[in-house]
Amino acid sequence: MKNDNHEEGISFSANKIFYNSEMRFCRSFSSLAIGVIGEKLDVLDGFCASGIRGIRYAKENKNVRSVTFLDWSKNATALAKKNAVKNKIKKARFANEDAVKFLVGGAEESDFDVNFIELDPFGTPAPYLFAVFFRMNENRKKTFYLSATATDTAVLCGHEKTACVKNYHAKSLNNEFTHENGMRILLRRISEAAAEFNFGITPLVSLSDRHYLKVIVKCESGAEKSDESIGNFGYISYCEKCGWRESGKKIIEKCGNCANITVWGGPLWIGKLQDKETISKMRERNNKKEYEDAEEIEKTLALIEGEIEMPPGYYNVHKMCKRISMKSVPKMSRIIEELDADGFRTVRTHFSDISLKSSATIDVIEKVIRQLR
Amino acid sequence: MKNDNHEEGISFSANKIFYNSEMRFCRSFSSLAIGVIGEKLDVLDGFCASGIRGIRYAKENKNVRSVTFLDWSKNATALAKKNAVKNKIKKARFANEDAVKFLVGGAEESDFDVNFIELDPFGTPAPYLFAVFFRMNENRKKTFYLSATATDTAVLCGHEKTACVKNYHAKSLNNEFTHENGMRILLRRISEAAAEFNFGITPLVSLSDRHYLKVIVKCESGAEKSDESIGNFGYISYCEKCGWRESGKKIIEKCGNCANITVWGGPLWIGKLQDKETISKMRERNNKKEYEDAEEIEKTLALIEGEIEMPPGYYNVHKMCKRISMKSVPKMSRIIEELDADGFRTVRTHFSDISLKSSATIDVIEKVIRQLR
Repeated sequence: MKNDNHEEGISFSANKIFYNSEMRFCRSFSSLAIGVIGEKLDVLDGFCASGIRGIRYAKENKNVRSVTFLDWSKNATALAKKNAVKNKIKKARFANEDAVKFLVGGAEESDFDVNFIELDPFGTPAPYLFAVFFRMNENRKKTFYLSATATDTAVLCGHEKTACVKNYHAKSLNNEFTHENGMRILLRRISEAAAEFNFGITPLVSLSDRHYLKVIVKCESGAEKSDESIGNFGYISYCEKCGWRESGKKIIEKCGNCANITVWGGPLWIGKLQDKETISKMRERNNKKEYEDAEEIEKTLALIEGEIEMPPGYYNVHKMCKRISMKSVPKMSRIIEELDADGFRTVRTHFSDISLKSSATIDVIEKVIRQLR
Repeated sequence: MKNDNHEEGISFSANKIFYNSEMRFCRSFSSLAIGVIGEKLDVLDGFCASGIRGIRYAKENKNVRSVTFLDWSKNATALAKKNAVKNKIKKARFANEDAVKFLVGGAEESDFDVNFIELDPFGTPAPYLFAVFFRMNENRKKTFYLSATATDTAVLCGHEKTACVKNYHAKSLNNEFTHENGMRILLRRISEAAAEFNFGITPLVSLSDRHYLKVIVKCESGAEKSDESIGNFGYISYCEKCGWRESGKKIIEKCGNCANITVWGGPLWIGKLQDKETISKMRERNNKKEYEDAEEIEKTLALIEGEIEMPPGYYNVHKMCKRISMKSVPKMSRIIEELDADGFRTVRTHFSDISLKSSATIDVIEKVIRQLR
């Protein structure tokens, strides 16, 4: 049942069920993020499967000091061990347990001390967040890093509203920028779990790709850090009639553009999704590596970098044209040019290739689009 | 350092730090609630201290099958053991561990199976909720009971707003019915933790007394039960100018009485706080017992019973009179009589002895009070 697999120069065994080659991009992307953190890292991969992710982290980054390969499946842990040995990962530990039980009970292992936790379960990372912050609080960590991947995008992005309340304690919103809403709901949920133990979070990089959302956040202990994070909790109000949107600490009931009654999502994270320095260093590092996905990574990081100072909520140009009854869609580059000329900053977004983010309000953007008719 | 103590016919040793005689009322009250649950109960007292609570539960109620005495303090566990043996508690277990670790790790003890969990820590029960529902979910419990006491009333009742967001994920409200808000915030937080594991809750009895809030809830597994509970999440909007209030699924920005901008609290539990049958059975049971606090218990339960069908938010009559510039405060009984005569149901409340709950709106109540001038 085993096959030999290769990823970025690493050879490893994998049972079909454990290895998703489509996630190579995600692993390379994360490995870059790991590499630009200016600290020695002891990584815990909570759902290690074949171990390829942890192996790559260790092989590709000098600052990775050790990797703990954890999986609830015995087969997975055994496979990860085999692959780690084969790839000469020196400082490696292997554990076969449920992630919550491992994290909560871990204190008895005096040597269990990690400062980078990878949560990439099947579905939602929400059920593991309490355990992460419980453990890091027990270990009196001042700083650590959390990488969380959510594949339950239907839940985060407005298709399963009740499940979103259950797992993320928030009202989802299914609109033209729903993937961004989902990301912000995920980040607030992480910050909420962090705050119970007086940790604050700073998002380093947030990625929406294929069928998953991934965030890597720096967690710092202290009431001040925690309070600061809480300050980023808010709501997005959205007008389903005209596409107007506004984010803030309060729900806005009436559309600021057409006075229609709005719908809203939240509480969600209305703060920054990206850390400028992290993104810029990831781009540099990507240029030096020769990843198979180097081009796609560069493209994505460039888009992400462009989004850094932009307000929440991107505009889907196709939907916008439909709303204003335009029969053809003008070129994105032309819209951006025109808005730039009028003094508004406008960028494409990694969330969607038919959308843009702009400092201009919807009526201004529409006016420009109409002129391009 | 040890003293002999007596409570309701039970003699036990207690170190001063472990025994608060003022909580006798609370223990009798809870013991009555335990007694009217029509099921065999295996009780876990997560913060057992001297053990007096668990001992009383077992001695006073035939349906208590076993008690697990748990405490993080070695001295407490040892003391509880000594007292339980002295009082001939047959089915008793003793554990010295942190409640979260005990609950999350408990699966390895094949005999660890409880269906009534008492959380009465110092401060907030919030940090233990995840572990409770994690464990009950692992044990595939269809039904169990949770008794949670919060002594952090300053946090729940509007004095420490940031701490409330951190521990209870809600905005508190410091107004004339703040203890009820606090109770509702606590209940929603419990329901939120329950929902993550697809449990729903039904409050059996909710008590505001001295410096604590206490709720006993029935927890049932299943998506339907869980969704039903979530349906009780909402907000209370309050006008600080005229005292108007409204609860519902949405925040109401403008006062329905004077059009002033409101303040709001939540999300909180806008459903029932009490179960009619439980309260009525507790009163019956109290009549048969001869508790030292029997009279106070009867008075409290009678008030609680009266509140059952009343809407959220009680009216502080003193504040109301001040607001309408009345120099003297009419008798509560007179106000109730007058409102009754006008067809409005009005009751006193166990939350506050200078307040009442009414089916009448604030303008109607004020009109009646003015007439009693």
